[in-house]
Parts: sequence; C-alpha cells; structure tokens
Amino acid sequence: MEYIKIFAPATVANVSCGFDSMGLAVDTMGDEMSFTKTTEKGVKITEITGADGLSFDPTKNAAGVVALAMLEKHPVDFGIEITMHKGFSPGSGLGSSAASSAGAAFGVNELLNKPFSTLELTKFSMIGEEAACGTPIADNVSAAVYGGFVLIRSYEPLDIIKLPVPSELRLVAIHPQIEVKTKDAREVLPDNVSLKNAVTQWANVGGLVSGLYTNDYQLISNSLTDVIVEPARKHLIPHFDLVKSEAIKAGALGAGISGSGPTIFALCKGDDAVKKVHKAIQNAYADKNIDFTLFSSKINTEGIKILETK
Amino acid sequence: MEYIKIFAPATVANVSCGFDSMGLAVDTMGDEMSFTKTTEKGVKITEITGADGLSFDPTKNAAGVVALAMLEKHPVDFGIEITMHKGFSPGSGLGSSAASSAGAAFGVNELLNKPFSTLELTKFSMIGEEAACGTPIADNVSAAVYGGFVLIRSYEPLDIIKLPVPSELRLVAIHPQIEVKTKDAREVLPDNVSLKNAVTQWANVGGLVSGLYTNDYQLISNSLTDVIVEPARKHLIPHFDLVKSEAIKAGALGAGISGSGPTIFALCKGDDAVKKVHKAIQNAYADKNIDFTLFSSKINTEGIKILETK
Repeated sequence: MEYIKIFAPATVANVSCGFDSMGLAVDTMGDEMSFTKTTEKGVKITEITGADGLSFDPTKNAAGVVALAMLEKHPVDFGIEITMHKGFSPGSGLGSSAASSAGAAFGVNELLNKPFSTLELTKFSMIGEEAACGTPIADNVSAAVYGGFVLIRSYEPLDIIKLPVPSELRLVAIHPQIEVKTKDAREVLPDNVSLKNAVTQWANVGGLVSGLYTNDYQLISNSLTDVIVEPARKHLIPHFDLVKSEAIKAGALGAGISGSGPTIFALCKGDDAVKKVHKAIQNAYADKNIDFTLFSSKINTEGIKILETK
Repeated sequence: MEYIKIFAPATVANVSCGFDSMGLAVDTMGDEMSFTKTTEKGVKITEITGADGLSFDPTKNAAGVVALAMLEKHPVDFGIEITMHKGFSPGSGLGSSAASSAGAAFGVNELLNKPFSTLELTKFSMIGEEAACGTPIADNVSAAVYGGFVLIRSYEPLDIIKLPVPSELRLVAIHPQIEVKTKDAREVLPDNVSLKNAVTQWANVGGLVSGLYTNDYQLISNSLTDVIVEPARKHLIPHFDLVKSEAIKAGALGAGISGSGPTIFALCKGDDAVKKVHKAIQNAYADKNIDFTLFSSKINTEGIKILETK
C-alpha cells in the first residue's frame, strides 16, 4: 500500500455518568485524512483544511506527533506525507485532536503493514492527545479507534472494553460556537466528591453498561445521569439546562456535556425521536444570539473507516 | 396455601468495586423459614434456632417487622406464625438480617396469594434491614430476593437490575468469628473520596458488569478492585491482606470484604480453583488463633427457594 485515505470519527467522551471512562463514536462527523509513502524519510504535513490554527510542524501537530512516535518505534526506509481535512472544529468537545491522533495511528499503521494492535494504536493516539491537550486521556481516542461505545476500564495497564450499541441508538449534538478549553474545564472539577455521589455515579455506570448489553433503552435513559461533573461544568455552557430539558421533553433518553464541552449531546431511540429532539434543541437556541451547528448521527460502530487505498 | 417453608440465601454485598450498589446471592448457605396461617390475627414468631439473641417480639425482629408491614398494607382475616432456622450467624457480613427480611417478605407474600411484585418485596425487606441495621440498604435484600448478581441502580426510585451470572462462577468465603458491627464499619468510611479514585471505581463497576454479560472471567478478575472502601475497612478484619493475597495466588479471580465484614469472599472460575482457594485460605488462617468457618458455593441464581408448601 502506497496511499490510504481514511475517515476518523468525532467522539463523545464521558457520556454523562462515565466521566473519564466512557466514550462513543459519531457516524456522520469526522476528519478525512490521507497518508502517502514518500521516498524522503520523516513525516510531512502538507495540507490542513477545515480548521484554522493547526500547525504544519509534525512535532506540534497531534497527527504528526503520533506518526513520528510510530516511526520511531517501527523504523522504515520511507517517509509519510499527511493531509488533514477537519470535518469539525477543534475545541468543540467532540474529540478533534483525538480524531487526528487516532486517524494518524490507524493510517500510519496501514502503511507500515499493520505492525501494531488496536490497543497499541490507542496508546499511540494518546501521545497525540497529550501533545494537543496536555493529558494522555483515552476516552475520545479509544472511541475513535474501536468505534461504538467504549469503556476505559483501566489506564495502568490500559484496558479498553468495547461495549455493544443498541441498533436504534442515535445522537443529536449542538455545538455552540464558543470556546471551552479542556484545561479550563478541568480546573472547575472538584478534587474530591462525596462518597454518596460517587456511589450514585457508579451505580449509573453499571446501569448504562447493562442497558447497552440488553438493549434496554429505559435503563439507558435512567442511567444517563451525572451528579458529579455536569453540575461543576454546566455553567461554562450557555443555556445548558434549557437545551437538556427541552431535549428530554422532546423524547431524548438523556443529554449531557460532550467531553469538556461546549457541545451538548442527546441520545435518542430511533429516527422519529431524533427529528423531534433536533427541532427542540434548535428552537431552544434559535433566539440566543449565539452561532451554533447542530447535527444528528447514528453511532459509528466500526471506528476508523478506510475510504480509499492505492 | 396454609403453610410454606422457604430457603432465604446468604448474600455478599458490595462485591469489591460495587459498594452500596452490587450484591450476589449464595447457593449453599442461608436460612430456612416457615410461615403458617393462624386463625388468630397478627404475627407470631414461635421458633428461632441457629443464632442467639434474636428477638421473638415481631416488632423487634427483622422478619417480624417485614411481616407486620405487609399485613398493614394488605389486611387479611388470618394471622401468620413464623419459624426461623438461621443457617449462618448475624454479624457475619453475609446478610443475616437481609435473609430474614427477604425470606419473610417472600413467604408472607405467598400466604397472601402474591399481591406484591418482586420490587415491592424488596422494599418491604428494606424495612426489615432498617429495623436490624439502622439503614434501609438494598444490596443484600435485593440479592436475596432476585438471586444472582444484582445492581441497585437507584434508590429514588428503587431500581434493581438483575445481572447475568457466568456458569462457572463460584464463591469461597471465610467468616472469622469476630464481630464487626455494620454501624462501626460505616463509621470508618470517608465522607469524601478523590475524584480520581471515584473514576477508577466506576470504571471497574462498568468492567465487572460487562464481564458478567460476556462471561469474561479475566475482565471480572481485573474489575474486582476496590480503591475506596476496602482500604478504609480492611484493618477491622484480622489478616485480611494475607487471606486476599493467598486466595489470589491460589487462583481466585479476586477477593474482598463481604458487606461490612468480617467475612472475606473470593470469587473463582470453576470447581478446581475453588478447591485450591479454599485450601489456601484455610492454611492462611490455620495458625491465627481465631475460630473461623469456611465454605464454598455456587452463585444462587433463583433467589428465595420454596422447600415445601401445604
């Protein structure tokens, strides 16, 4: 293989109760990236479209950092040229750097003839996350690499569990065009939480995982509750409570902050609910004088998709 | 039906990571209770064997309190006579009062011609738990009522999820003959926990639930970790660390404190592992000058069993 073009999905990390340990992949939004073998060794980023401010210097770009780390671990006698077409904005809370990182890990691995396992690709992607966000967090990248719903059971050692996705599960998400920096969103988090709230949260994590295995949408809905992180972060997102309550009133199973925000996601059962929730969220934000993008999607169960190879 | 004799199982609450939200039922250890219609109205406890110090006054006995509450909610023109043969000690951490409470809820419901649902039986049982322990905690009673592994997803409203039980899952448990009062075990708990530890815990809850659905014993083993409650309580149980490490060395999937102790449980895959773990725990405690009982069991997947009816 001399060339590969891939789709790397946007991802929703945390998913209400699963702060820092759950994520899911989006089907219709993501980045397109291409990877081409070059005779000159090293990594070159030759094109970035769809987002401003990303560095062409591979040592300062999440995708470049991942590619360099992989080539260091697995030296070859060729180089790699990367192009990136961002399908969504950095800073949206939909795993922009994770898509770039995971996409690079996947694409480079294909050109190297697949020396690395899926778990190793996740680890390489985390190096990109660390370069972009300061923390080698795994929830977005593992959702992008594995697809579907993932549980990061442990970091030491890294243990990613791919959970089943009920077939009618859908996502609606609104991205208000304001910036919430991951770092700022981390700073509002409490260092300590009450044992009582922690128990509530882990009971809901258990319920959400159970609901995914049994296609129990009511249980999924009941479990999509976050008593710890959402209360600390929601004031960073204008009209969060309104969007959430309107989405649920319109039939959403639940709604919450995607990653560290500002995107608000809602999960729905089926396409009819998606239409109603989409409209309800649109109405809620229509008169707020804040630009926004709004989209609906199935859950991506495959992870990164190959679009073309040569 | 004029008479029913039932088996109400011992239960292991918490199950390492699932503090206050998970429980499982034991197959070979529990109470036998009988319930007989009487012409005289009210509740009478006529026999208690197998344990000292339990009250015959129905207003001061967990089973009696449950029966009275049920008759108040569902008045009938007969009374009920209860006998209790405790198969294990109160204060063991194996849900002694829960077995009595759940057994009473089940037995009385049968004599009343089943007016109450399984969830309602759990709620009545919690009244017995409150009378016995001061807290209407649901983990032991719901495991006894539902059988198998249960998740208490929520208290308000009460939401019990019955989880699947992998067929080779087995239990070994040692009960050192010392007393740990539930109240004392509650007092050593921290009011607050670090967000980091809370995340670790709920990721493991997610992993344990996932492992139960997929029969993934390695995942179950990896997830049987408690970074919050076990460190706070283990000093109440002599030689806890030794028993745990010897059990795991001998092949246990994991080990922890059963409920609020002092019983230590180990989960195993298959009967060969049970033999080895049983022996290892026995050896660990043999020279410690503390009396103990040790038993092995399958997981009870049915809950309360009917032994005889007339």
